[in-house]
Amino acid sequence: MRVWQDDRLARVALSRIVEPGDPRLLASISSIGPVETLQQLADSHPDLAELQAETQARSGGLEPERILAIAARQGIRFVTPADDEWPHQLADLEQPRVQGRGGVPVGLWVRGPQRLDTLAGSVAVVGARTATGYGASVAGDIAAQVAGAGRPVVSGAAFGIDQAAHRGALGSDGSTVAVLACGADRIYPEAHRDLIEHLATRHAVVSEAPPGWSPMRMRFLSRNRLIAALTSGTVVVEAALRSGALNTANWAHQLNRPVMGVPGPVTSAQSQGVHQLVRVGAAGLVTTGPEVLEMVAESGQHLLEVPRGPETTRDRLDPVDRQVLDAVPVSRAVPSVSIARTAGIGPGTTDAVLVRLQEAGLVRSDGHGWRLAGLALP
Amino acid sequence: MRVWQDDRLARVALSRIVEPGDPRLLASISSIGPVETLQQLADSHPDLAELQAETQARSGGLEPERILAIAARQGIRFVTPADDEWPHQLADLEQPRVQGRGGVPVGLWVRGPQRLDTLAGSVAVVGARTATGYGASVAGDIAAQVAGAGRPVVSGAAFGIDQAAHRGALGSDGSTVAVLACGADRIYPEAHRDLIEHLATRHAVVSEAPPGWSPMRMRFLSRNRLIAALTSGTVVVEAALRSGALNTANWAHQLNRPVMGVPGPVTSAQSQGVHQLVRVGAAGLVTTGPEVLEMVAESGQHLLEVPRGPETTRDRLDPVDRQVLDAVPVSRAVPSVSIARTAGIGPGTTDAVLVRLQEAGLVRSDGHGWRLAGLALP
Repeated sequence: MRVWQDDRLARVALSRIVEPGDPRLLASISSIGPVETLQQLADSHPDLAELQAETQARSGGLEPERILAIAARQGIRFVTPADDEWPHQLADLEQPRVQGRGGVPVGLWVRGPQRLDTLAGSVAVVGARTATGYGASVAGDIAAQVAGAGRPVVSGAAFGIDQAAHRGALGSDGSTVAVLACGADRIYPEAHRDLIEHLATRHAVVSEAPPGWSPMRMRFLSRNRLIAALTSGTVVVEAALRSGALNTANWAHQLNRPVMGVPGPVTSAQSQGVHQLVRVGAAGLVTTGPEVLEMVAESGQHLLEVPRGPETTRDRLDPVDRQVLDAVPVSRAVPSVSIARTAGIGPGTTDAVLVRLQEAGLVRSDGHGWRLAGLALP
Repeated sequence: MRVWQDDRLARVALSRIVEPGDPRLLASISSIGPVETLQQLADSHPDLAELQAETQARSGGLEPERILAIAARQGIRFVTPADDEWPHQLADLEQPRVQGRGGVPVGLWVRGPQRLDTLAGSVAVVGARTATGYGASVAGDIAAQVAGAGRPVVSGAAFGIDQAAHRGALGSDGSTVAVLACGADRIYPEAHRDLIEHLATRHAVVSEAPPGWSPMRMRFLSRNRLIAALTSGTVVVEAALRSGALNTANWAHQLNRPVMGVPGPVTSAQSQGVHQLVRVGAAGLVTTGPEVLEMVAESGQHLLEVPRGPETTRDRLDPVDRQVLDAVPVSRAVPSVSIARTAGIGPGTTDAVLVRLQEAGLVRSDGHGWRLAGLALP
């Protein structure tokens, strides 16, 4: 049996032996390091007996240097905590567990020029594969505004919201990264070949699973924790009640990252999961990119003005004129003396104000009395 | 000058002299009662000098008995705190002030058979006059569910959400009440004559303004506080950023009543005001009538189950079968031995499980390997 001495090579071997997000492995690495963990697996150490039994079939004849060389020929590098580009925000994964998965990944396989340390401050935009046109459009807009503001977008590579998010970010010349459940060399779904290859050429596709590994449900669940942990906040654009995007939201919540939900029609099943997140307080509500930027900003950055409707003619009136206007009936005309009483303003002043308001087109007179010119109601 | 001794008649007189929601009048009534307040107005008492100057023109020759008699011929009664049917929840208006208005109303003019004390536990459903078809439909559904559960609906009488709310409540044979900014004898808007007359015949139309008074902006603002105060919670279905419905929501918030916002497409201007309320925490998000009932319920009533998506075939699998299923690739088929490794389950067991899963239609074999039968992803 080979003796493992190199931290990086030990991590390559472990990445090929154990499923992504296996908390037994990751706890052991965090406690005794990858070299010792690998040695304990080889020695059938009692602490790792269960894992050893399950992974035995994969453990023989590993040649990490060769694995790295083959990956390199595919344009894939293996990034570990010892590398400059390691995204240190992943340390937050040390403790949280969701559905039996968790832990800091043993390493990340990356295809593409973008360094992973650029993902500090990035934003996850995730949601339903079966998105509506509405959801895809809003996801694209939000991703464009986030990426356009200099924060990378992170998503999966699925149909629907994932795709719309990448397209939106690319359309704003921003950066966008896909985290995959399969190996970084694999294309899934096949229909997204062009998109995934483009991301791998200009930005990055990332996976905890080694090259060649297939996508399967348990790997999607482990992958979701990376999307949540790599980013400074997760936006869920559309999600039905059982959507996998809610799993990503759950991870972000466990990691104390802001979870943001984009509302939609209450009649849309694709928005039900999002509405439920907001209802129970697990997500804040956002409707635009700037609102997302405000939620993920350090305090004092990206402060939003409270949105207001357009200023109306009424807003520009002085207080006495406004008081008279508010006492003019919306329907049947009444004499100015009655308006004066209602407004609590003298009849002479009221008459003068009514003439001004008439010139501004706000009230009209029928000779006997005054009423509002339009439907300028509160 | 007449000497006022009767509390009810003094309130009738004050209702005819002072604008609805004038906090100076209502504070005085709350402090020294209506008889003494009316006397101070007649005596030009310094405490009420400003109000006296403004209301002088309306103060002469009032005959409250005659006013009540004329109202009675119109089917309108005057309800005061001394009456059995007085809605005591209005006492919460004692302190709050919004936009210079506030206070417990001097009395309420009511047309229709429904007693005001039935409004304990009622729910306000309000929103944009220029509602979308979506908003009107959702408002009608929510009002129908609320009224169908035995809680009266309260709204205005405007186009859009108000109308849809009344129609929804009527459609479920529930009770629904309109609070008007004009006198309870007046019809505004004219297009809602049939609706308002129907409410006055079967339920009630209510106003703080005496019969004959016109609708105008300041009276809508005062009216909004009554809608908020009469009810156990306010649902805002659609509201643009400057909508009057936000004023009602603001009143409900000041009165510590639950404020509930129904989300809509973020691309709809009619939902912007609602989204803003939810975003800043001034409203909770609701999507259905049962959710509204849960929000306004005494604790322990109307508890909702957490909504879940439909149970899937996967949910019904036993844990080992599910573990194998989660390790089956979604795309390219792989041998069962590889699935066994990924799942961490022995090859014999895995083979048996795969056959069962195939019979259930969840996986398929191409002779050399296995993959998922459909897109049964997380």
